Amino acid sequence: MVEHSGLDITCLNKYCHSTSSFNSDKEKKLFTKLKVNLTESYPQKNAEVLSAQYGTNILLLGVSLMLPLSYHATAVREEHLLSFITTLMLLQLLWMVCYTIRRERHRDLRPEKDAHAGTSWIRGGLTMLALLSLIMDAFRIGYYVGFKACVSAVMGVYPVIHALHTISQVHFLWFHIKDVIKRYETFERFGVIHAVFTNLLLWCYGVMTEAEHFFNKHMKRLSDLGYQNITTENLGPPCNCTTSACTVFSTSLYYLFPFNIEYHIFVSAMLFVMWRNIGRTIDHRANRKKPTTPTTALVFGPILGLLALASTIGVLVVYSIHIEESLETRVAAISMFYCYGVVMLVAMCVAGGIGLLVYRVEGLPLDTTENPSRQLDAEVLLGSSVGAWIMSWCSIVAVVASQTNPRYRWTSLAYSLLLILEKYIQNLFIVESLYRCRLEPGERDLRAQTPPAPEIFSVGGSMVPPYNGITNQAFDGQDRCCGTLESEQSDSGQVYGCPRKHSEVPLPVVSSIMIRRSSRKREILKNITVFLFMCNISLWILPAFGCRPQFENGLEQETFGFTVWTTVLNFAIPLNLFYRMHSMASLFEVFRKV
Amino acid sequence: MVEHSGLDITCLNKYCHSTSSFNSDKEKKLFTKLKVNLTESYPQKNAEVLSAQYGTNILLLGVSLMLPLSYHATAVREEHLLSFITTLMLLQLLWMVCYTIRRERHRDLRPEKDAHAGTSWIRGGLTMLALLSLIMDAFRIGYYVGFKACVSAVMGVYPVIHALHTISQVHFLWFHIKDVIKRYETFERFGVIHAVFTNLLLWCYGVMTEAEHFFNKHMKRLSDLGYQNITTENLGPPCNCTTSACTVFSTSLYYLFPFNIEYHIFVSAMLFVMWRNIGRTIDHRANRKKPTTPTTALVFGPILGLLALASTIGVLVVYSIHIEESLETRVAAISMFYCYGVVMLVAMCVAGGIGLLVYRVEGLPLDTTENPSRQLDAEVLLGSSVGAWIMSWCSIVAVVASQTNPRYRWTSLAYSLLLILEKYIQNLFIVESLYRCRLEPGERDLRAQTPPAPEIFSVGGSMVPPYNGITNQAFDGQDRCCGTLESEQSDSGQVYGCPRKHSEVPLPVVSSIMIRRSSRKREILKNITVFLFMCNISLWILPAFGCRPQFENGLEQETFGFTVWTTVLNFAIPLNLFYRMHSMASLFEVFRKV
Repeated sequence: MVEHSGLDITCLNKYCHSTSSFNSDKEKKLFTKLKVNLTESYPQKNAEVLSAQYGTNILLLGVSLMLPLSYHATAVREEHLLSFITTLMLLQLLWMVCYTIRRERHRDLRPEKDAHAGTSWIRGGLTMLALLSLIMDAFRIGYYVGFKACVSAVMGVYPVIHALHTISQVHFLWFHIKDVIKRYETFERFGVIHAVFTNLLLWCYGVMTEAEHFFNKHMKRLSDLGYQNITTENLGPPCNCTTSACTVFSTSLYYLFPFNIEYHIFVSAMLFVMWRNIGRTIDHRANRKKPTTPTTALVFGPILGLLALASTIGVLVVYSIHIEESLETRVAAISMFYCYGVVMLVAMCVAGGIGLLVYRVEGLPLDTTENPSRQLDAEVLLGSSVGAWIMSWCSIVAVVASQTNPRYRWTSLAYSLLLILEKYIQNLFIVESLYRCRLEPGERDLRAQTPPAPEIFSVGGSMVPPYNGITNQAFDGQDRCCGTLESEQSDSGQVYGCPRKHSEVPLPVVSSIMIRRSSRKREILKNITVFLFMCNISLWILPAFGCRPQFENGLEQETFGFTVWTTVLNFAIPLNLFYRMHSMASLFEVFRKV
Repeated sequence: MVEHSGLDITCLNKYCHSTSSFNSDKEKKLFTKLKVNLTESYPQKNAEVLSAQYGTNILLLGVSLMLPLSYHATAVREEHLLSFITTLMLLQLLWMVCYTIRRERHRDLRPEKDAHAGTSWIRGGLTMLALLSLIMDAFRIGYYVGFKACVSAVMGVYPVIHALHTISQVHFLWFHIKDVIKRYETFERFGVIHAVFTNLLLWCYGVMTEAEHFFNKHMKRLSDLGYQNITTENLGPPCNCTTSACTVFSTSLYYLFPFNIEYHIFVSAMLFVMWRNIGRTIDHRANRKKPTTPTTALVFGPILGLLALASTIGVLVVYSIHIEESLETRVAAISMFYCYGVVMLVAMCVAGGIGLLVYRVEGLPLDTTENPSRQLDAEVLLGSSVGAWIMSWCSIVAVVASQTNPRYRWTSLAYSLLLILEKYIQNLFIVESLYRCRLEPGERDLRAQTPPAPEIFSVGGSMVPPYNGITNQAFDGQDRCCGTLESEQSDSGQVYGCPRKHSEVPLPVVSSIMIRRSSRKREILKNITVFLFMCNISLWILPAFGCRPQFENGLEQETFGFTVWTTVLNFAIPLNLFYRMHSMASLFEVFRKV
């Protein structure tokens, strides 16, 4: 979105030409001036590619250091990986300090801000996650102190630096995430992308550690049940703990992992939006922060949601106990999980479907002003769905192909099919909600007082082109959120709005009854959103705290083999956890907007 | 990019409101009209999400059917996968027929075309690949006839349908790939995305079959050399061939695979651009096809490129023979490969670096008009680099961590580092070339005759805003390629151009000497492009025809373990092959443009 300070000319693709020699003094002077400018401003596209490639390579190097760990190779150990991550964090710290100091120095130049990036509630949520991460760091330090004698010093340095990194990063996010950087663009681009990929790497590390933890626990369970004859390797350090709290620390760590993992991926998503904003020219009209809509009667949504949440916790407890008892209870626990899942997913599908129907009845055009933050939200939502989808399709193939016939076979099939459908519907609902136009009460009143004289069109379609004079603004080239005014004009057949586009619905005429109807619809949508929000929490809690029947049910292992299926799960489960967290965030946004 | 047929109004974010009830006859009529419109035009964003999700799920189901094959499970066999793919191809055929018929019927409505999508040379190249695919299908049919007695009928049906699919698809690409669909948008969106993902699935299937082929050959080699005691499973059908040509067919298939694989991924990229174009409003000014620049003195580029190509073929032959002979020659072959690689990559880095330097000296702004085809090119280039990068980083970690010390240890380290650097530089060069403005000779002459009266600005910066009247065009909101005219105006200090933006360099003044200099620069750039093109062919040929030292050198297997390393390679090698093919296509585009 470009705003040319009042100047918008049809700028044809003209001629580009170079200047590297000069034959008059005039040109010489101009050339020197040009040269200075060249060194200052590197083309934006190149700076993007340069920094994106740098970031990708940092991540890939980190992943290459992680892969040998899964093989338990002796040459590459966790210390090496941690040293690398620590170095990256220190570099990021350095950059953040530089950035903050520079900003302070140029305080007088009020920087542009992107109102859509990092809303205060998302920053609040992140702060909570960061606090839990800090507790985790404290536990790690405690654990290190206990095993100091036989563990590399890096294991102690890492949590200290990580805590420092977390604190400064949260500070940075609170005060600078909305900044639209306009100075030293190329340099800052590197700084921001470094931060993005450092957090992504920390996420990968968290996911890997968590998967390992879970895997070891799973193997122990299996050997306890007499399934397999596995002598679980002693994975702890080769000496005794000098303090009494070591087991407490390591057990607690397991429960704090999920929060730390989500913290890092959220931070990288936020920083990525900041990176996309660098050098961008904000459209001030689209950049106004929308006020939150008033909360209407919330009854069904919260009640049903709380019910879902309560039953989830019940299922989690029963599952965790039964899965370890005996083979009989194990099968019962898995069956219970699938039955519970089917009920939940049906409810979610119905809720999402109703929401979509409401939107179809409304039939309003979508708001498509530029908003990198929202665009990323939608893309990430679709991208992270892939995890659960591949898992579900594999389960379906396995169930159909399976030669054994456990009790939960067909429930598991229904569960997988519903999971695919649920994500399909929920994504549609969230994306449509995020892109939907809405009536803003405050704005409406304001607008009613100042009739927009030059922009009158008749509903019939014949439009009178306005003359905007010299200050004719650049049009951003995309559809915009257009609508009508519920004023007396509606009776005379005249509404205010944008010129119609091919694929746009005609602008509806509104009346007071419609406003009442609309508020009823808003009520429905708000309730649905609350319900879906709570359901997503539920479906996050289960796998995050170890309820993963995909590992236990045996159907998929039979068809895919242990290695392939474990690989699929190690890819899909973290992605699915992220999907749930992310859809919670998006649904909260939807709730405030509807 | 939106063109509002002469109407551009500053369209503020207004109020959206719903209409679902009516209290007067007037409104009732309007509402009925609205309802009809609603069923016709589903919001574009939703249609996108709907169809994208559909396509993703098709692909994921296909992948789930593929995964058990790698485990050699008995429940899911190749026939099942092939039946699924055949169904998808038939569906695509049906859609293509429907589409073509509908287009024929509405022949009078001249459809909009995107000039940048599917240039004729790319369609020509695809036709070549398609022909090779057809030969492959013929071989497959021949192979099926030989083993008819003991092989499922699907194995015979598949190549027949695939051949039919290939022929109709090439026909479709020739006549419809540039179409910008404006009717039945939602339906067509599903058709196009179905085609995209069917081709992606065919690509995946090709990659899988090829990897299996290669892997079996690799294992056979190892057991021949006495490395491992593997009894290679008899993977052929369980009966004897009734014709004499079976071995000829299966051997030839191996050499045709790479072309078939590239064919499918290219088609899906092209169709993806078509999908992105649905419902888009083309900016006719940016949509003019640029004429090809005249070919200047090409000496160094082609000579060095041919040298590289010749040496590559030499290396391929020597490698293929030596790797199977003895342990001694095996090590020699791997060493030779790395030495050759280092020389090639250094040359490529230098060439790319010179190209970038030339651009820096020129210092022109970039052309950023909307062009989905180019944008996809750049994204895919960066995305597919990940394959080679992860492979290289793993190799680096392995070399550093290795406890053995083969002759090629440090050469392999240099090779990996250079591979990362080469991709980094080449991507920068290609992206910058694609986004670069250029002087068009024909246009220049035309422009010199008709001075653009209303758009005169002084270099000093004070600009006179023009009045464009009613036909004031929509400005697409992005920077555009701006430049100056090499006319007498330069002396009087006046140039024609766009209003300056924050991050844009000032418009240079040009003279006749500069034109000569510029043509010298173009000469350098053309030579570099030809050289890089040939180098990329070379680096595609080697892995495509079985020269994959990453499998043979043993360093990475030691650090990562056989399973992890094979998984990494099975992901990275196909992506890298695609990268090389894609950069060849991009470099060809660059060659025509520079």
